[in-house]
Amino acid sequence: MKNTFNPDDTNLKALFLGDKGENVDLFKEILNKMIDEHVGWRQNYMPQDMPVITPQDKSSQSFQATADNMRGVFNLLSSRLRTESLPWHSAGRFWGHMNSETLMPAIIAYTTAMLWNGNNVAYESSPGTSQMEEEVGMEFAKLMSYKNGWGHIAADGSIANLEGLWYARNMKSLPLAIKEVVPALVEGKTEWELLNMSTTDVLDLLDQAQDHMDEIKAQSARSGKNLQKLGKWIVPQTKHYSWLKAADIIGIGLDQVIAGEVTNEYRMDIEKLEAQIRGLAAENIPVLGVVGVVGSTEEGQIDRIDQIIALREKLAKEGIYFYVHVDAAYGGYGRSIFLDENDEFIPYKDINAVYERNGIFMGENTWLTEDVYNSFKAIEDAESVTIDPHKMGYIPYSAGGVVIRDVRMRDVISYFATYVFEKGADIPALLGAYILEGSKAGATAAAVWTAHKVLPLNVTGYGKLMGASIEGAFHFYNFIDGRKFKVGDKTITLHALTKPDFNMVDYVFNEDGNTDLVKMNKLNHDFYEYASYVKGGLYDNEFITSHTDFAIEEYGNSPFDFVNSLGFDRKEWDRAGKVTILRASAMSPYMNDKEVFDTYAADIEKAIQQKLEAIYNEEA
Amino acid sequence: MKNTFNPDDTNLKALFLGDKGENVDLFKEILNKMIDEHVGWRQNYMPQDMPVITPQDKSSQSFQATADNMRGVFNLLSSRLRTESLPWHSAGRFWGHMNSETLMPAIIAYTTAMLWNGNNVAYESSPGTSQMEEEVGMEFAKLMSYKNGWGHIAADGSIANLEGLWYARNMKSLPLAIKEVVPALVEGKTEWELLNMSTTDVLDLLDQAQDHMDEIKAQSARSGKNLQKLGKWIVPQTKHYSWLKAADIIGIGLDQVIAGEVTNEYRMDIEKLEAQIRGLAAENIPVLGVVGVVGSTEEGQIDRIDQIIALREKLAKEGIYFYVHVDAAYGGYGRSIFLDENDEFIPYKDINAVYERNGIFMGENTWLTEDVYNSFKAIEDAESVTIDPHKMGYIPYSAGGVVIRDVRMRDVISYFATYVFEKGADIPALLGAYILEGSKAGATAAAVWTAHKVLPLNVTGYGKLMGASIEGAFHFYNFIDGRKFKVGDKTITLHALTKPDFNMVDYVFNEDGNTDLVKMNKLNHDFYEYASYVKGGLYDNEFITSHTDFAIEEYGNSPFDFVNSLGFDRKEWDRAGKVTILRASAMSPYMNDKEVFDTYAADIEKAIQQKLEAIYNEEA
Repeated sequence: MKNTFNPDDTNLKALFLGDKGENVDLFKEILNKMIDEHVGWRQNYMPQDMPVITPQDKSSQSFQATADNMRGVFNLLSSRLRTESLPWHSAGRFWGHMNSETLMPAIIAYTTAMLWNGNNVAYESSPGTSQMEEEVGMEFAKLMSYKNGWGHIAADGSIANLEGLWYARNMKSLPLAIKEVVPALVEGKTEWELLNMSTTDVLDLLDQAQDHMDEIKAQSARSGKNLQKLGKWIVPQTKHYSWLKAADIIGIGLDQVIAGEVTNEYRMDIEKLEAQIRGLAAENIPVLGVVGVVGSTEEGQIDRIDQIIALREKLAKEGIYFYVHVDAAYGGYGRSIFLDENDEFIPYKDINAVYERNGIFMGENTWLTEDVYNSFKAIEDAESVTIDPHKMGYIPYSAGGVVIRDVRMRDVISYFATYVFEKGADIPALLGAYILEGSKAGATAAAVWTAHKVLPLNVTGYGKLMGASIEGAFHFYNFIDGRKFKVGDKTITLHALTKPDFNMVDYVFNEDGNTDLVKMNKLNHDFYEYASYVKGGLYDNEFITSHTDFAIEEYGNSPFDFVNSLGFDRKEWDRAGKVTILRASAMSPYMNDKEVFDTYAADIEKAIQQKLEAIYNEEA
Repeated sequence: MKNTFNPDDTNLKALFLGDKGENVDLFKEILNKMIDEHVGWRQNYMPQDMPVITPQDKSSQSFQATADNMRGVFNLLSSRLRTESLPWHSAGRFWGHMNSETLMPAIIAYTTAMLWNGNNVAYESSPGTSQMEEEVGMEFAKLMSYKNGWGHIAADGSIANLEGLWYARNMKSLPLAIKEVVPALVEGKTEWELLNMSTTDVLDLLDQAQDHMDEIKAQSARSGKNLQKLGKWIVPQTKHYSWLKAADIIGIGLDQVIAGEVTNEYRMDIEKLEAQIRGLAAENIPVLGVVGVVGSTEEGQIDRIDQIIALREKLAKEGIYFYVHVDAAYGGYGRSIFLDENDEFIPYKDINAVYERNGIFMGENTWLTEDVYNSFKAIEDAESVTIDPHKMGYIPYSAGGVVIRDVRMRDVISYFATYVFEKGADIPALLGAYILEGSKAGATAAAVWTAHKVLPLNVTGYGKLMGASIEGAFHFYNFIDGRKFKVGDKTITLHALTKPDFNMVDYVFNEDGNTDLVKMNKLNHDFYEYASYVKGGLYDNEFITSHTDFAIEEYGNSPFDFVNSLGFDRKEWDRAGKVTILRASAMSPYMNDKEVFDTYAADIEKAIQQKLEAIYNEEA
């Protein structure tokens, strides 16, 4: 009965179906066993009840005709999926979108739990998977080093970000509400002071006003009042459009969203952020909150969360406070590479020893900088975090997640307060009353729960998978940066955008000697077309990547240093107005092996050469 | 190659795994074939690439240890699911929550598509399943008889309702924005007139202002401006808490939500609604919108959408206009029972002939009234609809849906306007820019798409499944209403709340002669405990139901007529303040067969008798 597994034996290759379906036997063995156990459960619930579908039913002409029709529909489904899907399962040819193999245990667990079809909106209709979601939420909290935190699974990162903003909005409005309902508690405080109370202070105040909780909540932002008073929501210039949508939906409005400038490393510029916040304060405008991004969508870069937190502490002494939400939709699981086997954050000086002991990297750790380390560490001081299992958790879509530092915040947005106490877990009877969504698949919770059981959220588990992905990204980065191709008499060189903070590699092609930025942009866009479904095909495409544009309108001049390093001057940058970038989210779990990488590198190099030739031929 | 299936042969029993897993062979046959075809696809993408997981890898000690650990985790998952799940798969013993068997083709399609793991947020990363979602959206639109509609899959009904409110909020604010940006277009209109323009008029006006679209949108409610001016959002008194959450999140606030009273049939009282709206207009307060519910969560009742629409037409002549959103999360698929094989709404006089021709009911149609018919028909005049495949679509969680009547509305909430034209379908390149959510499982689209292919959304397909469910509900209703039980010298009678509008049966037990409403409530709550996991167990529970409370605070006095019919007077009603109700969402696809129902009825009757005895023994 005892689990005797030694985590040192973790072999990631046993946890994926395999780029060539190598593990299909194992996949089917477990899946069919789970189906049999489900069917056994159905058969043995009230065995005195006879099967409602009789042998005669099954032999009937209509049954056969219906089954055959279904078989035909599945032939169509299979054909369409095989014709129009991306081969991201390839071990080394797909260097594009945030897609890759997902964990076999997650796929099987999802399918298994789908047979039971629990709905985690309410404990009553899904006791098993509701408890799994509660456990996953506590695992998320532990991953963020939250001592009194709570979390849950969300539909996706946009919804999780929206929920984070909902928390921030309602939290920020509470002191004004307390002033309405229990003025004595905030006696003598100015409106500015009320709008600049720390989250912990607000929650402590609420603890003193438990008897008036419903009235206070009724006067909070949920009433519709004071939304425009709460101040500005600052998101990095590299902002994902989901933040605009979120501000729109949540009612504070786009007019309250302002962009924090980023540096030439695509991280938020903290000096400018400070100046921005001070400037607003001088005009008596509060800051509702600041979003730090851990793994930006287009660059995979990591904001200096530690510096954002330090700035907050500094300004708090001057009476300025802002909520911090970390959008770690992409990079959240990355924190598992910093937690030791006891889930403690590893001291920086010990980290390489721990990595060696746990086999995090096959070669040397050329990735980690103290900046990135400190950024991940400081997430423990943010109020809330978005983390998507369906990104770096290698879980199939759709699985997002939200984590809050202080479980008391949950009551600020909740609609009821009924709890059931069940088997030692303090689980909301109606999870839907505590979160943005309603009905939600128990199967998603089972998938994430199972993955976390197979790979714990520390260096003994997910840390290894993060390491494999990062190491693969660095092999690709080293392969890309400075590589030259010859087409006719032209030399085309690849240039990486930055040293990656995580596992995303952005890069461009440029013809040596070219000083026309518009021409370089066209070359890269043409390349993208050949390296995607647009012109390159899907199933017969030997190298696939994705692309993005960094335009002045959104990015300001943050890309200029890079553009300038390629030989384009300021005038050219202003003329083109943007730089087109190729982008590889390096999620393959297999590319950490340098020998395997090199095999693919030779083929990729050939494929790139062919695509470049096709582009130049087309032009000629 | 040709599909020769005759829909008359549709046999629902071939489409479910079966209450005793009767169709497990068919399930496994198709599922394993789909897995094989997926694996074949992986193997044959670039067959020159060698498998990255080698035979040596698979024979290694660490691989075996990892695989064994995974097997152990699955033993734990299976044990927990089998211990802590509800036996809603039972053909005739589960009469509770909105859970039942889901369609086998949907389960298999989900699993299949999950192997490809498309993300329908962006066409580029999911061409196949994105097209399926677009097709499903158009099928939803056709189901609602929208000529120029559009729809998509959502995470769940709460999210879909929130999106409906987002549409309403931004639409309503547009005339004020147009006045800011292109005042000439609305010259001479008062603010009241601007806030009472019809949706079609607003969209026509926008068509004239295409060059200023971005500026107008920037001045709309998405800016954060004018939210409190837009007026009241009216939801039925029986309102689901998701509507409170939605108003909170969307920023109009709870203070703008008002309850429309319901009749003793739990449908919105249209006379009172008219008086309410006129009263608001007299105070110069506009109505942002009215929500009609098609299949209320607690009663399954259906609002008179036709009367809401008629009221709107009447008031429009007096310069009062409100948006109508139909919350058909539960009942939306019910519209398929009104569409003929050409997807045309069947004339009322022909309906029984069509039902007979298509085998919708095994016995007589004792369900349909002209009220219910007219309510479903009028959905075609609402601006937007919520429809959840994971409810009456018999699709596994999570699958909600939103449909809009006029595709032009889509641009009112969108963030970009980039389209790709692909294979004749006009598909958003970035669906995430047109909807509330971001990343979303392509697998969900595949599941719904496959189900719709097997069962078209009319009387040749889903209509049959709706018929089976409704007919089963009426067998249960007839079984329940007036049935008597003897415990000692007490007689306990079952009373149904109303004749069901759809497939939900609400009911109470009362001791004959009892005039103590608190006592009756206790009896029903006790019964619920024995008929649920609370005291009755899960896997060994022979009859399962769910419960709800109708309290004066939410329901006003709408339940009084029912309570009074049981012999409780007004004083007693006021004293108790609520009535506890038992509730059966009758979703089993097998209970239409009266002979089968009667077999179960005998067993259910015994189980009820035992539970009542346990309750009275406990008291004694």
